[in-house]
Amino acid sequence: MTVVIDEDRLSETFTALANSTRRAILARLAEGAATVNELAEPFEMTLPAISKHIKVLQRAGLVLRGHRAQYRPCALDAAPLKEVSTWAEQYRPVWEARFDRMDDYLKHLQPAGKDRRTR
Amino acid sequence: MTVVIDEDRLSETFTALANSTRRAILARLAEGAATVNELAEPFEMTLPAISKHIKVLQRAGLVLRGHRAQYRPCALDAAPLKEVSTWAEQYRPVWEARFDRMDDYLKHLQPAGKDRRTR
Repeated sequence: MTVVIDEDRLSETFTALANSTRRAILARLAEGAATVNELAEPFEMTLPAISKHIKVLQRAGLVLRGHRAQYRPCALDAAPLKEVSTWAEQYRPVWEARFDRMDDYLKHLQPAGKDRRTR
Repeated sequence: MTVVIDEDRLSETFTALANSTRRAILARLAEGAATVNELAEPFEMTLPAISKHIKVLQRAGLVLRGHRAQYRPCALDAAPLKEVSTWAEQYRPVWEARFDRMDDYLKHLQPAGKDRRTR
């Protein structure tokens, strides 16, 4: 399967992901659908603040909402995350080359048997 | 290997990636180091505009700069992209389940032998 990446959509996805609360909401929704009230609870945020984050996630296609008037559960749609993974994986050869080189470098620095920790 | 994700750093990485010009700069740098002038050329942007994008990429640790005064080449550091991939891959079970369900759904919709295309 060839994956064609929509640049605007990808920008919107990355914008939505550039916030730790929004990423935590996705992690919660990965366990199952939840209402805005249920989502707000662990974050100690106001409902309007959580609703704003959810709207950003909805626009990016990461969250779907139910349509029942009072109870509109939020659900995760992970399809855009697959695109993020596909996009990042293009660079795997670069980071693998980097860590190979770093490995060589560290071996060069460390005398054998010495327990020298790196950050 | 356990990967510990720094949430602030990840937010900064996603912010840097939320722009198609910045992603194009990374794609160019994956082919090798380049000066700001070389990077500016294909984008038909002013040097200050490109420099601004490069500064965002530098802050996110995606671009490293050389130190020679006149010729300060930019190089890609793909390590943050590995973190992006690791983060997104957590959701693989979700998107795989999703596509499995969609598959079932499409099979259910499509009469056997009918060539019905989906977008």
